[in-house]
Amino acid sequence: MNRLSELLPGKVSVEPEDLICYGFDASGLESPPAAVVWPEGVTDVVKVMEFAYTNAIPVIPRGAGTGMTGGSIPSQAAIVLSVEKMNKILDIDRENMAVLVEPGVINGKLQRELQRYNLFYPPDPASMNFCTLGGNVAENSGGPRALKYGVTRDYVMGLEAVLADGRIIRTGVRTAKGVVGYDLTRLLVGSEGTLAVITSIRLKVLPLPEGVIALLALFKDAGQAGDAVKQILSSRIIPSTLEFIDGGAIRAVEAYKPIGLPGDSEALLLIEVDGHPAEITREAEKISRICESLKGEVIMAEDEAAREKIWESRRAISPALYHIKPAKINEDIVVPRNRIPEMLKALKRLSEETGITIVNFGHAGDGNIHVNLMVDRNNKEEYKKAQVLVKEIFRLTLEFGGTISGEHGIGLTKSAYISMEIPPEELELMRKIKGVFDPKNILNPGKIFP
Amino acid sequence: MNRLSELLPGKVSVEPEDLICYGFDASGLESPPAAVVWPEGVTDVVKVMEFAYTNAIPVIPRGAGTGMTGGSIPSQAAIVLSVEKMNKILDIDRENMAVLVEPGVINGKLQRELQRYNLFYPPDPASMNFCTLGGNVAENSGGPRALKYGVTRDYVMGLEAVLADGRIIRTGVRTAKGVVGYDLTRLLVGSEGTLAVITSIRLKVLPLPEGVIALLALFKDAGQAGDAVKQILSSRIIPSTLEFIDGGAIRAVEAYKPIGLPGDSEALLLIEVDGHPAEITREAEKISRICESLKGEVIMAEDEAAREKIWESRRAISPALYHIKPAKINEDIVVPRNRIPEMLKALKRLSEETGITIVNFGHAGDGNIHVNLMVDRNNKEEYKKAQVLVKEIFRLTLEFGGTISGEHGIGLTKSAYISMEIPPEELELMRKIKGVFDPKNILNPGKIFP
Repeated sequence: MNRLSELLPGKVSVEPEDLICYGFDASGLESPPAAVVWPEGVTDVVKVMEFAYTNAIPVIPRGAGTGMTGGSIPSQAAIVLSVEKMNKILDIDRENMAVLVEPGVINGKLQRELQRYNLFYPPDPASMNFCTLGGNVAENSGGPRALKYGVTRDYVMGLEAVLADGRIIRTGVRTAKGVVGYDLTRLLVGSEGTLAVITSIRLKVLPLPEGVIALLALFKDAGQAGDAVKQILSSRIIPSTLEFIDGGAIRAVEAYKPIGLPGDSEALLLIEVDGHPAEITREAEKISRICESLKGEVIMAEDEAAREKIWESRRAISPALYHIKPAKINEDIVVPRNRIPEMLKALKRLSEETGITIVNFGHAGDGNIHVNLMVDRNNKEEYKKAQVLVKEIFRLTLEFGGTISGEHGIGLTKSAYISMEIPPEELELMRKIKGVFDPKNILNPGKIFP
Repeated sequence: MNRLSELLPGKVSVEPEDLICYGFDASGLESPPAAVVWPEGVTDVVKVMEFAYTNAIPVIPRGAGTGMTGGSIPSQAAIVLSVEKMNKILDIDRENMAVLVEPGVINGKLQRELQRYNLFYPPDPASMNFCTLGGNVAENSGGPRALKYGVTRDYVMGLEAVLADGRIIRTGVRTAKGVVGYDLTRLLVGSEGTLAVITSIRLKVLPLPEGVIALLALFKDAGQAGDAVKQILSSRIIPSTLEFIDGGAIRAVEAYKPIGLPGDSEALLLIEVDGHPAEITREAEKISRICESLKGEVIMAEDEAAREKIWESRRAISPALYHIKPAKINEDIVVPRNRIPEMLKALKRLSEETGITIVNFGHAGDGNIHVNLMVDRNNKEEYKKAQVLVKEIFRLTLEFGGTISGEHGIGLTKSAYISMEIPPEELELMRKIKGVFDPKNILNPGKIFP
């Protein structure tokens, strides 16, 4: 690593305190790297990759470490490549509604910057105030607004990236459309740092909606909340957000960051509509009527302060649950949305059978449920029981026509389960594609593939 | 081929009249195959591919042959695999807003079928009443509605496909989200039949907009039309369509299928807004005011009959131009949309310099211009001159930050130019990916790569 420090003076550390800090992420896993490097531009990244390629040393690209599946956890003797210092918004092209950013730009920072120009970048992971756009691209992050606006993949126009051997590639286009050659851009999106190191990102942006109305609907019966979701979605309204929070999660948030939600609620829907003020008022009223007809208690938030308060509680769920069980298991299954009620019933049954508390919240509009197993990883027996339960939850999810990850990716924590979903022929194709990009297997090795 | 006929009795032809019919497409190129096969399901496709793989015979997947770049033109001694008989809509899942179709389903047929359920599949290539969804996926087709709704890629949730050696793969998910493994789905989208034969397609659909208003704005000055586009797009309205037709194309359509457009118009904008009736009325009025303030003459079509009449003229452009010059060259460059005026000026200059008439129309909203060189391919000298001109147009397009194809793909006609846009590193990655899927190079060989 001395040679790497010489190549990038002042940008490399092998200090124990750095190695510890860059050895864990939001997955709860830990494994310190051999070195951390903070490149300040593509030239630095090229130097790192050339060094790593020559010496066959693994490189772990890392954004803010907010990933839930251990994607940024180093394998042994690896270099963690942190993009923190590549944090510039390089261009906001208002006429073509596109931005060019470095991978270390925080999602929320871009959101706020764009608002000044009446522009809008929809993907909004719950960690948006911390997570980087580079990490978002690597994981193909979603967020509540995915229902109306799609996920990160839908906004990436093109990428600059460094290959395992240090060569720079530029994928995609600077235009709204383009069909020249294979779609390398979307192959890199969601590849979890295993194919190349992303060094700049061109993103499509939209006009900022003129208004947003948030509604919060509380139900004493989870089934009625499910019916409300169904009726809203078949009413020709596409809410920008349709979040679901179960009774357990409501009570956890109230204990952690109280906003006065009644303790006997069994389901909460957080719904947003955006667009022209007259239009969204009409839509919000329609949604309100649907919820009330199903005995929902509706609170409407038309101004920014009221909206922010509602969202704070939504974003507090994950920390609140960690507060109860610091080492809970958080999965992010997706089922076709008409199977959500069945899935929730099955989860309730499994919880009763195993004695493990399961708390659920997520994106009801797109069928993405964050299933939280309230166990302690440090309690070996409990954890083992939970692992069996996770496998059963995945089995059911797939039986319902679902997928084992809607947002978090595979990383380390789900690699043992990937072949439950992906058949051998496809896994073989993926492995061979990995081999095309990374013949020495130095880019985030050990992730995705079992 | 006798053996193939035995494997698929009654589904294979080597009759000269069939070979001629399946040897050309909308590109104007011609080259008859050695056999045509009409599989009726995935099992038949598996048989074709196993036979082709064993005997190392090229297979050319073919939809309706409406492609513009020769993607379905056989190489010598190839089998054309026509998906015409795999034309069933297998499932319309209203609750999850998804459909499952065979690749031979005509785009327009799906559109009409969905309307009955108040559902909507946005991609609308001009050939929508003829082209197949399989072809749309293979080419990643766009259409006028791409401005608001994106292209085919944005609607493909998952695919079933047969690999070169006859193995079946199933990519993607049945849910709104999914991030498990590499995105093989979007690698296949736009791969022009070179990676696998698509046998079924799961598509996302949307609620049908409650209303649509079409506006036609005629300008005597192309510059003012350009200013109108700019002002509309910066007014926070996202029209579902913003088409541009130049004076030459207007006159060509009037000669072919008159709808009474004034002959002295130099630009026509065809704009649609869709959504809630109150909302789109407001938007249409705003757009109307913008156009009129720039001396545009505006015709508004609020009912279906008036709208259809306007669209007929738009869809008639391509046939109308073929009527003038049966072997014209039709390119589909894209530039960042703020560069459209410069690009149109440059095209005018090039037309004057070379004496070759250039007629332009296309999707102003996303910068995609259909540049038509009105030459006769059969006039060798003129054609040669036009080829030089095409190269210069591509060079300028790339200089403006554009791409040489927004919708048509590379196929045969643009493969000589692909390296103007795609650097060697990326082309090498694409070739290696091709090798992973198709080691014997039997799937649509000779396409995309120079």
